Amino acid sequence: MAEQDKKDWQFHLHEIIYESNTKAGKAFDVGLLIAIFTSVIVVMLDSVQSLHGQYGVLFNRLEWIYTIVFTAEYILRLVSIKKPWRYVFSILGLIDLIALIPSYLSIFFAGAQALLVFRALRLLRVFRIFKLGEFLSEINFMTTALKGSVRKISIFLLTVLTLTVILGSIMYLVEKRENGFSNIPESIYWAIVTITTVGYGDISPITPMGKFVASVVMLIGYAIIAVPTGIITHDIAVAARQKKELPESCPNCGREGHDSDALFCKHCGASLLL
Amino acid sequence: MAEQDKKDWQFHLHEIIYESNTKAGKAFDVGLLIAIFTSVIVVMLDSVQSLHGQYGVLFNRLEWIYTIVFTAEYILRLVSIKKPWRYVFSILGLIDLIALIPSYLSIFFAGAQALLVFRALRLLRVFRIFKLGEFLSEINFMTTALKGSVRKISIFLLTVLTLTVILGSIMYLVEKRENGFSNIPESIYWAIVTITTVGYGDISPITPMGKFVASVVMLIGYAIIAVPTGIITHDIAVAARQKKELPESCPNCGREGHDSDALFCKHCGASLLL
Amino acid sequence: MAEQDKKDWQFHLHEIIYESNTKAGKAFDVGLLIAIFTSVIVVMLDSVQSLHGQYGVLFNRLEWIYTIVFTAEYILRLVSIKKPWRYVFSILGLIDLIALIPSYLSIFFAGAQALLVFRALRLLRVFRIFKLGEFLSEINFMTTALKGSVRKISIFLLTVLTLTVILGSIMYLVEKRENGFSNIPESIYWAIVTITTVGYGDISPITPMGKFVASVVMLIGYAIIAVPTGIITHDIAVAARQKKELPESCPNCGREGHDSDALFCKHCGASLLL
Amino acid sequence: MAEQDKKDWQFHLHEIIYESNTKAGKAFDVGLLIAIFTSVIVVMLDSVQSLHGQYGVLFNRLEWIYTIVFTAEYILRLVSIKKPWRYVFSILGLIDLIALIPSYLSIFFAGAQALLVFRALRLLRVFRIFKLGEFLSEINFMTTALKGSVRKISIFLLTVLTLTVILGSIMYLVEKRENGFSNIPESIYWAIVTITTVGYGDISPITPMGKFVASVVMLIGYAIIAVPTGIITHDIAVAARQKKELPESCPNCGREGHDSDALFCKHCGASLLL
Repeated sequence: MAEQDKKDWQFHLHEIIYESNTKAGKAFDVGLLIAIFTSVIVVMLDSVQSLHGQYGVLFNRLEWIYTIVFTAEYILRLVSIKKPWRYVFSILGLIDLIALIPSYLSIFFAGAQALLVFRALRLLRVFRIFKLGEFLSEINFMTTALKGSVRKISIFLLTVLTLTVILGSIMYLVEKRENGFSNIPESIYWAIVTITTVGYGDISPITPMGKFVASVVMLIGYAIIAVPTGIITHDIAVAARQKKELPESCPNCGREGHDSDALFCKHCGASLLL
Repeated sequence: MAEQDKKDWQFHLHEIIYESNTKAGKAFDVGLLIAIFTSVIVVMLDSVQSLHGQYGVLFNRLEWIYTIVFTAEYILRLVSIKKPWRYVFSILGLIDLIALIPSYLSIFFAGAQALLVFRALRLLRVFRIFKLGEFLSEINFMTTALKGSVRKISIFLLTVLTLTVILGSIMYLVEKRENGFSNIPESIYWAIVTITTVGYGDISPITPMGKFVASVVMLIGYAIIAVPTGIITHDIAVAARQKKELPESCPNCGREGHDSDALFCKHCGASLLL
Repeated sequence: MAEQDKKDWQFHLHEIIYESNTKAGKAFDVGLLIAIFTSVIVVMLDSVQSLHGQYGVLFNRLEWIYTIVFTAEYILRLVSIKKPWRYVFSILGLIDLIALIPSYLSIFFAGAQALLVFRALRLLRVFRIFKLGEFLSEINFMTTALKGSVRKISIFLLTVLTLTVILGSIMYLVEKRENGFSNIPESIYWAIVTITTVGYGDISPITPMGKFVASVVMLIGYAIIAVPTGIITHDIAVAARQKKELPESCPNCGREGHDSDALFCKHCGASLLL
Repeated sequence: MAEQDKKDWQFHLHEIIYESNTKAGKAFDVGLLIAIFTSVIVVMLDSVQSLHGQYGVLFNRLEWIYTIVFTAEYILRLVSIKKPWRYVFSILGLIDLIALIPSYLSIFFAGAQALLVFRALRLLRVFRIFKLGEFLSEINFMTTALKGSVRKISIFLLTVLTLTVILGSIMYLVEKRENGFSNIPESIYWAIVTITTVGYGDISPITPMGKFVASVVMLIGYAIIAVPTGIITHDIAVAARQKKELPESCPNCGREGHDSDALFCKHCGASLLL
């Protein structure tokens, strides 16, 4: 019976922490989101020198409170689930862990102070918000669409990178060291800045020939931006069509994919109107 | 009969102010648009120091004339409608009110001078232009399309913001204070400037490692711009299909999805022209 | 018979100048394109101070040769056509005229020297290249698609302009004169530079609040770029569908718009396979 | 029999070098890719002045090792194929040759040192990666889509170039020499920087009139970016449809356009599985 009690207690905790269809579950999720947001804001403010001087001690204390809260949450997540390892090695579980480590490292290693910045990774936990139901179908829809594009996008990125290496090398030859193109990696950096149309202007061509090459790079960047857009637009359309067709399975043979206005199953000929 | 007269007068005023299918109504709308445009231009010119010195008094007088005109218009709108509160709390009504307030506030509060800038909000009233008939269906079409995208766009924006916080924090770690990345909020600002491909160049990476991280941020920004485009393109296509299909339900069986020029229902064969 | 001769001569000239399906006609078109390109290059080079010093006299002479050539061509176009006024007031005819005027004006008015820059308008004549047949269907296709977008694009541009006026005014309030946002028009210029993701960096926010507002402007610009893209993509698809459907008219009743795999006309029921 | 032996040897070598379905073939491809990547990295590092000072001799030696390796590979490719000229004049063969030449030229000509930069062209050889099977169908799909766009994209680029020449000339007139717009080619460079939304800020308008013209250029650039995107998106959709439809002609009546999962021809009713 103690066993039963423990299970009951575990079940309720699980419902609060992992589900969000009860009132307590929703409150837990909302509270967690607030904790995440405010903790990231504390990290940000602490990096502002003037604020660090004035409120450094307060920020440090808040930071420890957040660390304790998130550690407690992590432990609760472990005990309230049947297969804790599954959670630990899930994507969300790994993010939770990575977001915890920096605070503890900074106690043991003085040099690990820099790692505190990684507390910003806590923000990744914000994606738990999508567990809040309403966004789930949209998320699924978009990840399906993007998965279909991954290969085409990587071909595209490889092509762009090759282009920037070659165009950067040419520019290094054309503009020379004196004009800011100090070496090939620097020139490639310039080519990326230019082809993505970011254009900081920290390095920019000075000779007429350099300006000509730069113009070509810009026009290439302006024209090929269309390629990933076209790919993703197309894959969203494909994903949408598949999503729409899914519920139209034949009542007789169960197969799917009928035109939206078909009257008879094209696989077995049974009426779809039954 | 006086009652009747009042109603008649109210009806005519309503027709002039709220409708635009009579000659007077159209003239009123056009006159209003001119008043809005010129008043915003006066606000702009008044902010130019040299012009303010020379024509400040004139601008001030013009401003008061505009305030009186728009106040009068607002009162007329109130009296010519049966349910004035409905207008007051409609979107267009609220914009009208907000555009009026700054001028009056500046009389009572000396510090409210700054609020004069909000007179530029008058420009929002320009959207009344779309009441001029011809644009209405396009507006409806596009708002329908964009409404369908709101959720997906907000997921996208949240992802981008999370990315900028994390990438900005990493960059703060990599580039340090001395190179312009003075604190995390500043670094996040840099990440937004970079990922949106704006690239002011007021802050830009200096160390090789920083340039490498920046290149990654730029390529991410260059590739993911495709996502909102794909979403909106898809939703415009969906909205267009629905618009085309909606009025075409069969008068016999009620089912939809006929081609726009079909004469007979493809589900039951009944004529669509009845 | 002299009359007949004149007509013959006019007919041949017309064929050479206006058509391009004869050998002479093609040669004329190609020669004209070369003249246009080289004349624009002369205009460009003449604007480079060092080259102007060295070759100014040569450029001036070349310029007069081009002027004579284009004037002769314009006169030939007038005499070889039956209704010269039609040509004069056609779009291509007006461009031809506008490209000629600056050279003549510069003789009579000393101040008109500046107008010489408008000789660059000659480049507009390059679009005659599309008369060269192969591009015609593509041009027609794209202008059809873009015509369908004009209204939606103008609503979009009006919205963007209103946004920039309001965001510019807010930024003027936030950043003040000292930080480069000297007046509202200047701030609007900044807002346009930012929302279009150009980002010169000649004016950029300095205060934290200003950087926050700027970030919002950038994210807006990054997200709404998707709107015109979506519109044009959709209208290209619509134009393509119409183009594809056009040749599928029913052999019996002549009406169009059948599905690509339809066997029978949906208007009159006749077989489409006859 | 020696003849037979030679053929056998040639056949095996061919399999290793040109194919990648054997273990040795895959190892060869992977090894080659690593050699290409590392050799390009050596070229890059050698261009960094401080590294060149320290490791210049090492880089030089590595460079010669790579040259020998790639020369050996080139010779092996020639001897293991039946029609060597076919390989020499294929696109991949020409790239292989161009990537080899600079190293040899630098021995014979002192001035050819600059050509060493062209060793970066070796990176083009990376596209051999796509031979590794899995990407092939995506590559084919995308090149088909882009081929369909070439003409429309070139019309678009010609229009953009004409626009930049004219807008650049106008800006040269408006802003004058003193403000950085030193001559028309420079102004055209500025127009390209602006219309592609790169926006270095090395040249930017200073007069109010110039800022107004610049704003127009930016808005044009912001709006017309949609055009190539629309074109490519559409052509990707068309290519996708053709890819899906092509293999599905009915074995009985030969007509196409069946859904990808249809079992029976919708034109004649014959089974599609025969």
